Amino acid sequence: MDIKSYMRTLGQQARAASRHMMGAETGAKNDALHAIADALHQRRAMVLDANQADLKAGIDSGLEAALLDRLELNDARIDAMIDGLQQVAALPDPVGAISELDYRPSGIQVGKMRVPLGVIGIIYESRPNVTVDAASLCLKSGNATILRGGKEAVYSNQAIADCIRTGLAAAGLPEQTVQVVDTTDREAVGQMITMPEYIDVIVPRGGKGLIERISADARVPVIKHLDGNCHVYIDDKADLQKAHSIALNAKTHRYGVCNAMETLLVAESVAAAALPALAEAYANAGVELRGCEKTAALIECNGASGDDWVTEYLAPILAIKVVTGLDEAIAHINRYSSQHTETIVTEDIGSSRRFLREVDSSSVMVNASTRFADGFEYGLGAEIGISTDKIHARGPVGLEGLTSQKWIVLGDGHIRN
Amino acid sequence: MDIKSYMRTLGQQARAASRHMMGAETGAKNDALHAIADALHQRRAMVLDANQADLKAGIDSGLEAALLDRLELNDARIDAMIDGLQQVAALPDPVGAISELDYRPSGIQVGKMRVPLGVIGIIYESRPNVTVDAASLCLKSGNATILRGGKEAVYSNQAIADCIRTGLAAAGLPEQTVQVVDTTDREAVGQMITMPEYIDVIVPRGGKGLIERISADARVPVIKHLDGNCHVYIDDKADLQKAHSIALNAKTHRYGVCNAMETLLVAESVAAAALPALAEAYANAGVELRGCEKTAALIECNGASGDDWVTEYLAPILAIKVVTGLDEAIAHINRYSSQHTETIVTEDIGSSRRFLREVDSSSVMVNASTRFADGFEYGLGAEIGISTDKIHARGPVGLEGLTSQKWIVLGDGHIRN
Repeated sequence: MDIKSYMRTLGQQARAASRHMMGAETGAKNDALHAIADALHQRRAMVLDANQADLKAGIDSGLEAALLDRLELNDARIDAMIDGLQQVAALPDPVGAISELDYRPSGIQVGKMRVPLGVIGIIYESRPNVTVDAASLCLKSGNATILRGGKEAVYSNQAIADCIRTGLAAAGLPEQTVQVVDTTDREAVGQMITMPEYIDVIVPRGGKGLIERISADARVPVIKHLDGNCHVYIDDKADLQKAHSIALNAKTHRYGVCNAMETLLVAESVAAAALPALAEAYANAGVELRGCEKTAALIECNGASGDDWVTEYLAPILAIKVVTGLDEAIAHINRYSSQHTETIVTEDIGSSRRFLREVDSSSVMVNASTRFADGFEYGLGAEIGISTDKIHARGPVGLEGLTSQKWIVLGDGHIRN
Repeated sequence: MDIKSYMRTLGQQARAASRHMMGAETGAKNDALHAIADALHQRRAMVLDANQADLKAGIDSGLEAALLDRLELNDARIDAMIDGLQQVAALPDPVGAISELDYRPSGIQVGKMRVPLGVIGIIYESRPNVTVDAASLCLKSGNATILRGGKEAVYSNQAIADCIRTGLAAAGLPEQTVQVVDTTDREAVGQMITMPEYIDVIVPRGGKGLIERISADARVPVIKHLDGNCHVYIDDKADLQKAHSIALNAKTHRYGVCNAMETLLVAESVAAAALPALAEAYANAGVELRGCEKTAALIECNGASGDDWVTEYLAPILAIKVVTGLDEAIAHINRYSSQHTETIVTEDIGSSRRFLREVDSSSVMVNASTRFADGFEYGLGAEIGISTDKIHARGPVGLEGLTSQKWIVLGDGHIRN
């Protein structure tokens, strides 16, 4: 197969479909989402058979257990995909919304209209449910999509793609609105990220290595998520009970997630009061502590090295640093954090105002666990990912992050003098 | 000079200044803008002397007249820079604005806060006024800036930079909030566009060649403006008098600007009624016409080739095509336009609704001249450029386009269960 011409054909077809989707009515898009859900339900056996083929190939090639688990589909997971489709259908359609339409001194009206981005390329690893989740968000936001899943899930993804095409056709929308790349050749990714004429934005989902490689080589804008090195800062003026439960929740609620706390900062004046009880709770939860010297003077812990301030452990490990106060906390976060999510625990309005304004991260919180940084918790309904970029979409990216705004101007024969 | 370490030092200093500027109060930023204006006024002679040195070097090296004109400063142009600074000071400060702060079912409040992008790199050609315009917009939006102007303007830019530093210092803001690159070595640009750790976004201003080179090599997001291949479509249902004045204004008001019309599309049913009078008016204005076959059957014109549909003439030349109606007009625009600005002339609500929704350009207009696509006309107060990108900022980019939004979360000890 000539990968380059194959990918360019997908690109051309996606561009043509996206032109149609720009003007597609909300009703038709919702019909398609429901029809895809129906197709998944009716052809459940076919999808599960395809998944069995992937699992068998995965076992034969010695795939590790965690990857096999991500790859596996079962009735519950197909039901979850169907629920997801119905939830996306129920979300408000952002496309076409006109805002700030004001008269200007010249007599023209100027406003903004929310519009799809066009064609979105999604590159992801082995979870087949991403195929449905990503396709549904892109469809609802009026975009065409080219999906490139992991090679381990190729049969599952093709079976799901078949259900998606069925649903699109049933709603009278172009089948090529959602296309799944039908080759496991890695060159397909290289092509995808260098076709700005056909693809408007790339959303990679997967490990940091994958995302860094894609960002380095892409000639198309990338909405990316790198690390989640998240912080909780316990301020001088913290309520220590709130501090205790937030610091515990942010670390121990789930370990392998990007919005888990990785470094705890504690103001010097409350460290002796706050840390011992926390250390005991962390010990009970089996969390390894790595503290600065001042921390080590207060609780039992391993010594923290410079690396600990920049590491996303995704594991029951926590770095702890005692800081002089708010200034040092903000400076530490702005220097070492991955600009994902940070929390201050304080009862002081002034400290919270400064923390909210001066911490340069995609989510900044007061008296709440970092674990809330999530599209569902924020009311986006669903998310395609969490962006650690600063331009376009920051933080959890839902339907609105898959759109842009164009200017609209209304006149009645107006010319410029 | 070791360009790499020099540029990295500028980058580090800019990053440090940007941390300070994130929390800078509106009053301090406005004070700085006024103080820069004062410094330019008081040190006018020094700036004009420096400019004379640039002009002399330009004449000696055989710079063409148009470039010398762009390079030249005089009292009127310095007054215009001072006015510009005062206008930017008078604009509302977008930074810190909190929107959509709503309670979620979990009890947390979730909203968005508008924040500076951080450090903005501006790469431009020989106009020294860009130094002040770009610096003032970046400063007001709370960003630090690294400015790299054309080598022809190096003395002028350093003199202006000196006034900017004076103004920043007078307002108690870091002088390194605005830094002008002090070398004409081209390697400085190569460094600027590959320091994502210090520069958050690059805004190139200049010819298409410069912008394409920068975009191809950048490892930092680029807000770019490529061509303005703008269209006016005269619909079946157009008021032909409005069509006449809009089509004339869009082409002849100014030729060398990106929002001038380059191709006129006319619905077949009104072509015979509209084109002869327009052809006469264009002939009087000295505009060369290049028409499709159907156009050539109605008026005197040269033949249009495929190239004419994609060319930004920036000159008294106009391509004309007769189309069957709205569908062909939208398809032609979405295929050939540079996604800058397009207008429909029509009295029909249905046609205008479809055109507004389905034309994929940064500005889409009804019954108004394309010449209105401009930051001042849109009420942005000033613009750093017009973006033909689809992500982040589209169309005229003012203060808001130099900012992003982060999520803020307010709780009272809330944890996730």
